[in-house]
Amino acid sequence: MKQATSNTAQPPGQLEGVRVVDLSRILSGPFCTMHLADLGAEVIKVEPPEGDPIRQQGHSIEGLSWYFAAFNRNKRSVRLNLRSAEGMKALRKLIATADVVVDNFRPGVMDKMGLGWDALQALKPGIIYTSISGFGQTGPYVHRPAFDFIAQGMSGFMALNGTRESGPLRTGIPISDLVAGTYAALGTVAALMRRDRTGRGERVSAALVDGLLSYGAFSSAHYFATGEVPEAVGNDHSLVAPYGLFTAADGEITIAPSNEGVYNKLMKALELEHLKDDVHFQTNAARVKNRTHVNAVINEVVRTKTVSHWIDVLNAAGVPTGMVQDLAGAYADPQVLSQDMLMEVEHPGHGKVKMTGFALKFSEAPCQVRLPAPDLGSDNASVLRELGYGDAQIAALAADAERAGHGASGEAA
Amino acid sequence: MKQATSNTAQPPGQLEGVRVVDLSRILSGPFCTMHLADLGAEVIKVEPPEGDPIRQQGHSIEGLSWYFAAFNRNKRSVRLNLRSAEGMKALRKLIATADVVVDNFRPGVMDKMGLGWDALQALKPGIIYTSISGFGQTGPYVHRPAFDFIAQGMSGFMALNGTRESGPLRTGIPISDLVAGTYAALGTVAALMRRDRTGRGERVSAALVDGLLSYGAFSSAHYFATGEVPEAVGNDHSLVAPYGLFTAADGEITIAPSNEGVYNKLMKALELEHLKDDVHFQTNAARVKNRTHVNAVINEVVRTKTVSHWIDVLNAAGVPTGMVQDLAGAYADPQVLSQDMLMEVEHPGHGKVKMTGFALKFSEAPCQVRLPAPDLGSDNASVLRELGYGDAQIAALAADAERAGHGASGEAA
Repeated sequence: MKQATSNTAQPPGQLEGVRVVDLSRILSGPFCTMHLADLGAEVIKVEPPEGDPIRQQGHSIEGLSWYFAAFNRNKRSVRLNLRSAEGMKALRKLIATADVVVDNFRPGVMDKMGLGWDALQALKPGIIYTSISGFGQTGPYVHRPAFDFIAQGMSGFMALNGTRESGPLRTGIPISDLVAGTYAALGTVAALMRRDRTGRGERVSAALVDGLLSYGAFSSAHYFATGEVPEAVGNDHSLVAPYGLFTAADGEITIAPSNEGVYNKLMKALELEHLKDDVHFQTNAARVKNRTHVNAVINEVVRTKTVSHWIDVLNAAGVPTGMVQDLAGAYADPQVLSQDMLMEVEHPGHGKVKMTGFALKFSEAPCQVRLPAPDLGSDNASVLRELGYGDAQIAALAADAERAGHGASGEAA
Repeated sequence: MKQATSNTAQPPGQLEGVRVVDLSRILSGPFCTMHLADLGAEVIKVEPPEGDPIRQQGHSIEGLSWYFAAFNRNKRSVRLNLRSAEGMKALRKLIATADVVVDNFRPGVMDKMGLGWDALQALKPGIIYTSISGFGQTGPYVHRPAFDFIAQGMSGFMALNGTRESGPLRTGIPISDLVAGTYAALGTVAALMRRDRTGRGERVSAALVDGLLSYGAFSSAHYFATGEVPEAVGNDHSLVAPYGLFTAADGEITIAPSNEGVYNKLMKALELEHLKDDVHFQTNAARVKNRTHVNAVINEVVRTKTVSHWIDVLNAAGVPTGMVQDLAGAYADPQVLSQDMLMEVEHPGHGKVKMTGFALKFSEAPCQVRLPAPDLGSDNASVLRELGYGDAQIAALAADAERAGHGASGEAA
């Protein structure tokens, strides 16, 4: 496990010098700004008096939600009451120093706050303004509240997930939030690169439903080309057989022979080459038609040896083969650990927090933990001082936020 | 449906002037370079004599796979025999003009081709070299063949997807390829931005397993914080009730009341407020414990009206509510159409191809179809001429590729 102690003296990241004012909360927006922060941007999370609701979600240890910690590493926190004139004034001053503003409010909320696209451009020419919403910034559903589950259902994703028996199935991760957040980060960096070249800012947006739609891959292509609506096929592959989950002596294995060449390698490694001319096995089309029989024949061989035997033998033969791991297995896997995908990060006052490592690797300016996830408002003083506030004003803003207590300030995607 | 005719005269995209040499094939790499191309980069797809295998997959109309077309829009194609000295020489000349090289070969293949990181830097100082692999560029599994299904099983994703009855379930889209491809695009653009500022190139990599791990969200956080391994919960939410799929008079609806405030709005809209003090309903904890009963009581009300009734009424009440659509429903949805997420693109010689629109929206330099997906080798002449090749040499390279016929040149993630 990689031990990470926050260290601001390490080499600069990809987005060194980029300042992001992050008005987003919960998941899609904070995931976007986590990417930007991991890439080296300075992300200032502007939180309402009650804090990002995710601070109260998931399991907390020593007063810190590990869910919040994972999604908010490398960020600073400023707590402001945006329902007061002074709070809004501080936010506007902050935005005037920023390269990027990110929100995931419902469309229209920023306009009501006086921070629509025109206002933001006036505050800071050349700014990038990135929004994430459920359904897009326009259109008939624009005012509906959005949520990952709704996007999974609406986008066709749930209809493709599951089995014939299960019916449409939500997946266990908030996939539409995560996809949209990653898209928003990509769009933001692309717009920053353009701004560096042209001096011009840009309005960028991503949506939960649009992101999932763009992940339709062969299913969408098949539907567009044929008009046939693909069904959920569970662990089978609609166009290829054999393919799927097989039962070894001590557990299940995934086998994915995606083409005829790999299929032949599989049959050789299973010592089933004599079936080559069997009418059920002759062609992929025949095997798809006789999938139950084909899978049973193969499974009879697979069940004679262990998972680890087949992983060694089949992969060596060039057949993609793996194990089915739960999270405990995944985070104990030597390959996963070799990629530093499990990190333990020191959070002063809250102990060491385990979290997932960086999915992107860079040779020159690797992602790193520069800062632990911030306590609510922990950077008020330093950020406000940079904006020219004196100690008394800083204290007044903090008192204002404290008084505002649990006032809400919009709804997030 | 948005009609798109390729048009190179439209305003420049985010990545205007960036040249990408794309050695990738099948899915993860081409999805990465599709993003770069959609953002305005010039992507030159270098294909082996037999072409990207995806050209032969999925349903073809007028000689064109719509699956290939969707993932390879906005790219050019150069067909080269990389097993010949002349083919490799042309590739090296091409790389010397590039800003980015992308591959998804198994780690080590590029080194064997003489195109490892050092060689690429020598060919073009400041180049960005982006690789996508199954498991990462190092580690104990580095030489295993990789595939989306394997990554879904190994990363813990399958163990979180499904129901108690179904067991671990692969999802219907090649999620690990798509996530890794999007990460690779993000890493590439971030590295380009850094290069613009520092002049320094970079090695960037993403992996199918790492990408999915990074999408573990609350499940991973829960496992890290408690040591408890989260189980697949189907359409339920492990921590919240009511939440899930309910049956209206004419179909199913998704209802996602993620917190107590929204739950109260739901109960009011269902006219079930009198249950507030019922022992089964008093707290979220009680409702989770009595989920079956709670869901049944709610469903008794839901089944009395239609899907469209509840979508109107519950969303108006502030409760995220949606329909479950298959792809036919999704691509007929007025909101989806309003976002131009269904495009029909003219492919000269192959008719009009329907495909998914752009998930990212930009105010200044929107993504657009500048080029239809290329025929194999359709840009050999123009690209090679730019490199200084004469007509005879261009013809000789084409003849060499033609002769090489079906030689393979590596394995892709």
